[in-house]
Amino acid sequence: MKNTERLTADVLSSFGSTPDDRLRTLLRGLVEHLHAYFVENAVTGQEWQAAIDFLTQVGQACTEVRQEVILLSDVLGVSMLTEILNEDLQDSHATEATVLGPFHLTDSPRRELGDSIDEVMAGDPLIIEGRLTSTDGIPLSDGTIDVWQSDENGFYDVQVPDLQPQGNGRGFFQVDPDGRFWFRTVAPAPYPIPTDGPVGRLLAATKRHPFRPAHIHFILSAPGHRQLTTHVFMGDSPYLDSDAVFAVRDSLVVHKSVCDDEDLAAKCGVAVPFEVCRVDVVLERLETNQS
Amino acid sequence: MKNTERLTADVLSSFGSTPDDRLRTLLRGLVEHLHAYFVENAVTGQEWQAAIDFLTQVGQACTEVRQEVILLSDVLGVSMLTEILNEDLQDSHATEATVLGPFHLTDSPRRELGDSIDEVMAGDPLIIEGRLTSTDGIPLSDGTIDVWQSDENGFYDVQVPDLQPQGNGRGFFQVDPDGRFWFRTVAPAPYPIPTDGPVGRLLAATKRHPFRPAHIHFILSAPGHRQLTTHVFMGDSPYLDSDAVFAVRDSLVVHKSVCDDEDLAAKCGVAVPFEVCRVDVVLERLETNQS
Repeated sequence: MKNTERLTADVLSSFGSTPDDRLRTLLRGLVEHLHAYFVENAVTGQEWQAAIDFLTQVGQACTEVRQEVILLSDVLGVSMLTEILNEDLQDSHATEATVLGPFHLTDSPRRELGDSIDEVMAGDPLIIEGRLTSTDGIPLSDGTIDVWQSDENGFYDVQVPDLQPQGNGRGFFQVDPDGRFWFRTVAPAPYPIPTDGPVGRLLAATKRHPFRPAHIHFILSAPGHRQLTTHVFMGDSPYLDSDAVFAVRDSLVVHKSVCDDEDLAAKCGVAVPFEVCRVDVVLERLETNQS
Repeated sequence: MKNTERLTADVLSSFGSTPDDRLRTLLRGLVEHLHAYFVENAVTGQEWQAAIDFLTQVGQACTEVRQEVILLSDVLGVSMLTEILNEDLQDSHATEATVLGPFHLTDSPRRELGDSIDEVMAGDPLIIEGRLTSTDGIPLSDGTIDVWQSDENGFYDVQVPDLQPQGNGRGFFQVDPDGRFWFRTVAPAPYPIPTDGPVGRLLAATKRHPFRPAHIHFILSAPGHRQLTTHVFMGDSPYLDSDAVFAVRDSLVVHKSVCDDEDLAAKCGVAVPFEVCRVDVVLERLETNQS
């Protein structure tokens, strides 16, 4: 047996007494892939050192308001892969998931249907309307929607506290008894992921652009249903086919249309005609119905 | 094609414009193994989050005097694997390498043959004697030896500055015209790698002990030869078959013997009989002979 194979066997064996079965499986799989990667590529000492330095920089770039390890996972497609893997358990009729991203806050401002999540109102209004239903077609009258997005310049409130009030671009809504929701916002813009850290340097070294296509984040919940974290992507945005974090899914691309619905205009405080995006969401019913 | 396969293909493709061929190869191999690992194990969102948190803690545990990312590489056998992989290029008659470890200082005290690297002298003396030769058998008269080790309690000078003077347990020697070297020290003791950080928590969760068998570190150099970083391991030490960092190699285990050589005793300032370890080292001649 080659020396490297004996070493790999020794490392695998060293984890043999791990009490937690799942942890043992995950660590052994990690060792197998890590070692195979180093052997296949005959990684040099200099390259190993560069990898150590890079991972150290990624860890050290993390602060209370920045998670560079997640950003690394994002640009390697691992965050999105994890989303897809966990969705494979889901009913295929449910709306597809995508990554949470770094800009979610645990307490979005509670708003009423028809309110504007855009408190600055410097751009053209965009109305979002949609309906929350279960995979069996029933409207989810107890559903809630947590929404957050960049403004028309590609910035979240937390990035530019001097330009946007806290909570701008965010809202937490209760749907109506028929599962419907509607609110006012402004069309989001594409924006770059942070490029001033080690992950940004990785993108530069590989000639990858850092942009994400314009999108609106949602977390949708209803009693007895699997919570869904997803985005909708604006169909007229650049970068739809080269999202820096690989989160675009065809089913999540939505298109603006011009609308002259006087009733909806009145409910959202806009004049006709206005632009609207329809966002219908289907949540998976859980086997054990808990509410 | 399954969704996960399309995602992996997209991520691989995103690195297609990397100007540096080797970087492109290494990143694509990394993406392939990372994604295969996640798919094979159906890693959950909770497990992904735990991995993110762990890597973040490892990076944040690094300071000017602590390198937790290297420690993680060590306990996963990756540091030793890199050593072996790069040695595969070497002449098989050369002495085997092992890991550098975290306690090397760039400037060991320059000492004369026969000096003691143990400045405290609280333990029984141990004499190290040996010879530095080339793979073709020629003594390397211009060779140098950088040596460092723990004391008889398992501590390096930098760990206990109140108990050991700076430079204790360390020495930089020029060999004699016949390639020979001899110096006095104290037998090193086994010691645990740092367990107060995330890597220590990993060992605890997997019921692995943190100990390294007793050893003495060497960096050996001679003009025209490949520099060698290695240890010798004390043959009577516990943990020889379960080194926490997988650095033991059979060829590097040495045994103490009792010696009554009056000449060597005089040269090292000890009384007969005394204990001695013989450490003969063979360096690989480089193709391009530079001196």
